[in-house]
Amino acid sequence: MFSELDPPFRLLMGPGPVNAHPRVLRAMSVPLLGQFDPQMTTYMNETMALYRAVFETDNRWTFLIDGTARAAIEASLVSLLAPGEAVVVLSSGRFGLLLREIAERCGAVVTLVEAPWGEVVPAAEIEAAVARVKPRVVATVHGDTSTTMAQPIETLGDICARHSALLYVDATATLGGMRVPVDAWGADIVTAGLQKCLAGPPGIAPITISDRAAAHIFSRRHVEGGIATAADAPARGARIGSNYFDLAMVMDYWSERRLNHHTEASSMLYAARECARLILEEGIEARVARHRAAGEAMAAGLRAMGLTLYGDQGHKMFNVVGIEIPAGVPGEAVRSEMLDEFGIEIGTSFGPLAGRIWRIGTMGYNARRDAVLTTLAALEAVLRGHGFALVSGAAVDAARAHYAGLS
Amino acid sequence: MFSELDPPFRLLMGPGPVNAHPRVLRAMSVPLLGQFDPQMTTYMNETMALYRAVFETDNRWTFLIDGTARAAIEASLVSLLAPGEAVVVLSSGRFGLLLREIAERCGAVVTLVEAPWGEVVPAAEIEAAVARVKPRVVATVHGDTSTTMAQPIETLGDICARHSALLYVDATATLGGMRVPVDAWGADIVTAGLQKCLAGPPGIAPITISDRAAAHIFSRRHVEGGIATAADAPARGARIGSNYFDLAMVMDYWSERRLNHHTEASSMLYAARECARLILEEGIEARVARHRAAGEAMAAGLRAMGLTLYGDQGHKMFNVVGIEIPAGVPGEAVRSEMLDEFGIEIGTSFGPLAGRIWRIGTMGYNARRDAVLTTLAALEAVLRGHGFALVSGAAVDAARAHYAGLS
Repeated sequence: MFSELDPPFRLLMGPGPVNAHPRVLRAMSVPLLGQFDPQMTTYMNETMALYRAVFETDNRWTFLIDGTARAAIEASLVSLLAPGEAVVVLSSGRFGLLLREIAERCGAVVTLVEAPWGEVVPAAEIEAAVARVKPRVVATVHGDTSTTMAQPIETLGDICARHSALLYVDATATLGGMRVPVDAWGADIVTAGLQKCLAGPPGIAPITISDRAAAHIFSRRHVEGGIATAADAPARGARIGSNYFDLAMVMDYWSERRLNHHTEASSMLYAARECARLILEEGIEARVARHRAAGEAMAAGLRAMGLTLYGDQGHKMFNVVGIEIPAGVPGEAVRSEMLDEFGIEIGTSFGPLAGRIWRIGTMGYNARRDAVLTTLAALEAVLRGHGFALVSGAAVDAARAHYAGLS
Repeated sequence: MFSELDPPFRLLMGPGPVNAHPRVLRAMSVPLLGQFDPQMTTYMNETMALYRAVFETDNRWTFLIDGTARAAIEASLVSLLAPGEAVVVLSSGRFGLLLREIAERCGAVVTLVEAPWGEVVPAAEIEAAVARVKPRVVATVHGDTSTTMAQPIETLGDICARHSALLYVDATATLGGMRVPVDAWGADIVTAGLQKCLAGPPGIAPITISDRAAAHIFSRRHVEGGIATAADAPARGARIGSNYFDLAMVMDYWSERRLNHHTEASSMLYAARECARLILEEGIEARVARHRAAGEAMAAGLRAMGLTLYGDQGHKMFNVVGIEIPAGVPGEAVRSEMLDEFGIEIGTSFGPLAGRIWRIGTMGYNARRDAVLTTLAALEAVLRGHGFALVSGAAVDAARAHYAGLS
């Protein structure tokens, strides 16, 4: 028998998950309700309304997928793409490659438009590919934490509209920390996860779907046996290749029909609802400004420590920064000392960047001045211990000066 | 802006979700850890060990799927079954039909062996079908809550062994309430959900996989681009049709390799760990006896009220009972009055049984004497109000007498 949960103190300054807001943690200890209890369906409807505001959209179909962020990606792509259909995927990092991976498993024909890691994909190349391929879907990550780059989305809606494609955006790592104006973008499906700038735990994933994309998905509706009624003649479109991720049935579950599909993950819904309440109480503009301030202060401190930031700083996400690990400094030992001695987690990266960069996040509850200053002080001490040449105190002073300049 | 969560009191006596144990609710408010923090991977390993005991198995591959119970079903079937492969599915209720549905979406060729709802599928018919079809997989539900019947599993392992099939069992509604002796059954994959006899919230799903089934799944391993290494040459087997549910990668995530797949749903893992600790503290035998006692006392009380129980009582699940709605009694009005006046939820059913039976569960935290007696007292009052002829007090007395006879 193992003992009661009692984890050590951790300040999670990696690329996510980060510390959940205490109010979100408490929300999960609220007693459960039956899944069709009037109070439960009221909470579901309220959650839909709250996320409409968070996603800056009027989309009716704004709800939750019961799984982690990648569950919502897969639900989107498998529900949009029938086998053999074309998709254009933008990629300049690990999570762009994940979109390709998932689309391939849906049986889609993928055209990858790539840029080097550390950059973003130029709009002209995107439009050229879309014009050539005429895809059903264009899929992109907004902020790819593997490289810390934020792909500009502003022009993609128009490109998709010109070529009759649907636009999918993975905003897992940006929603709540950067603006994700779904309707202004003209995006058709946007998904996220709780465990980054939304300040919640991983395990449930907000999604919003335009009427146009919903109509396409409903054209593939095949209600499962055992609960289908006489009115549920299968639609003409190809049956969606997953039951759990069949967004036609999931939308029916979140609609007045309350189709019995999965059983909603009540405690995680409570968490998601509280995350959204916190965002709207703070205000989206103020929250994004808080993330920008923390990210810029962190970057100022890191530069003052003599470190080199990774990637195109003109396209960096507000809420995570990559740092080139200096020659002669053991990257993993630094991470271990940060964790073991200071209780602070920072990240490494994937694939070609594994062991080449650290990643430090300032996300959600942790996009705070004290978290920035504490992390810089600890990193300075650890780097000094490894003989890295730096001016003691300069990093924290630079971050403090950045904050002072904002007020 | 919507107000803080403050749901009304509910005693959830339907077929699940039921009230979570208070210790499980509290576990979810424990602070988060980074996903590869040594303490987090320790908790993951502990959870694997705990669920080996709960599943009564030595299976190394015993872990969690981040989704509701049906997510684990889909992960099992999509990872086992390549398109075109044969599966024999047993069905005598809605959740048997769900297995067919999910298998079809995997592209499998399904042979359904059916019994009427309210009965179980005879072993001879199963063996005949398996001998004829020679399927890759035989799939069955253990306890189908739609009918309250428990399919006997004891003979299925031998049948599958004789015909070289893999055995999948959906124990969503029974694990923690009836014995699920995975190794004694000779089952290859068994999955569950937290929200019934495990006394937790919906949203994460325990799974156990035999070495034989794991070897088959690893023969289909295709590690995704972006994290695959030179050692990850694709296996020869067909790539699994889902990324999120690719059990080869999920097992790599839960192994020493810690392959970066999804981000584990930490708070739900905390909940699942606490559910298992509660079971093992109580003891599996004692817990099953508690469920049996509550189920039998409930049945005794319902009979004493003059109600007719639904289905083959020789194969009834311990933890849920179906009641034929008496002629002239408005079934939905009874459920509403139970909920609105007494705070007690009971269920209806699906498809051919919708509006024909109620279902009352005695599961997990709610498999308690007080919950049984309170529910019977409330139901009696509501039925009396609708003019149903009964002997006042007989139901509660019968249930108390049943409990008295056990001590």
